Amino acid sequence: MVDETRWLDDEEQQAWRSYLRAVRLLDEELRRGLERHGLSHTEYEILVRLSESPGRTLRMSDLASSVVSSRSRLTHTAARLESEGLVRRRACAGDRRGVNCELTEKGFEVLDAAAHSHVEDVRSLLLDAMPRAEFLQLGASLRRVADGIDPEGTKRV
Amino acid sequence: MVDETRWLDDEEQQAWRSYLRAVRLLDEELRRGLERHGLSHTEYEILVRLSESPGRTLRMSDLASSVVSSRSRLTHTAARLESEGLVRRRACAGDRRGVNCELTEKGFEVLDAAAHSHVEDVRSLLLDAMPRAEFLQLGASLRRVADGIDPEGTKRV
Repeated sequence: MVDETRWLDDEEQQAWRSYLRAVRLLDEELRRGLERHGLSHTEYEILVRLSESPGRTLRMSDLASSVVSSRSRLTHTAARLESEGLVRRRACAGDRRGVNCELTEKGFEVLDAAAHSHVEDVRSLLLDAMPRAEFLQLGASLRRVADGIDPEGTKRV
Repeated sequence: MVDETRWLDDEEQQAWRSYLRAVRLLDEELRRGLERHGLSHTEYEILVRLSESPGRTLRMSDLASSVVSSRSRLTHTAARLESEGLVRRRACAGDRRGVNCELTEKGFEVLDAAAHSHVEDVRSLLLDAMPRAEFLQLGASLRRVADGIDPEGTKRV
């Protein structure tokens, strides 16, 4: 049987290993940065989405489709954020089955502090490693990768 | 108080979001590809390291430092691979405290099948999304990111 697998050559292999190493190291550094504010990546993104919404409030169903893959996982995470006093959940007025999730004042303060240090981490670890034009090129390359996997932009990750 | 945080501008923000989206989508696709062979990412990397070693064997301590962060996590993963018949663990000859981990023939066959489809996934989802020179440039950019975070190359991720 002929092996038709398109194996990576040495240069491609090296670039792929750099990709894996950078992605994992950066993820770990950013995770530790957010952890100092008591937040996971997913929790941070939930607070960001709420802060950008009118009245700092989103329906749980809209929040689920904008940040995480499963509704049950979001319910769990929202419960934890609520126990910390960072969000508040309430039945929607006029819709007994809907639940709103609202960012509290404390949640806003925690997010504000976390956002400052998170963006500094992203900039110092990623953007500062290369000229601005090179970073924008990297974004354009990866945008094609993302659009190739998810052309409709509907997959939740 | 003056806000000295170096926030991302619109173009930088867009590139950063493309980065996050591509990295997560690709990770999820590759995870699903390996899952069809019954392997997690970490398990796959363990089998690769063993297959590249003399006698397809590595000491557990060397394996720990080459693929995963903690010894206890590796022990757990190796136990699972052993229960599937993919690796075999044995006391090192002449060193009662050392344990060798050896890839079995079945492990080699599983790895071989997984490697063919994994590299096809990497190529079709990532490399084929851009010209070769652009991919090598992306690798070079990300290598500087990785080297910035881990100049000694000693962090395990």
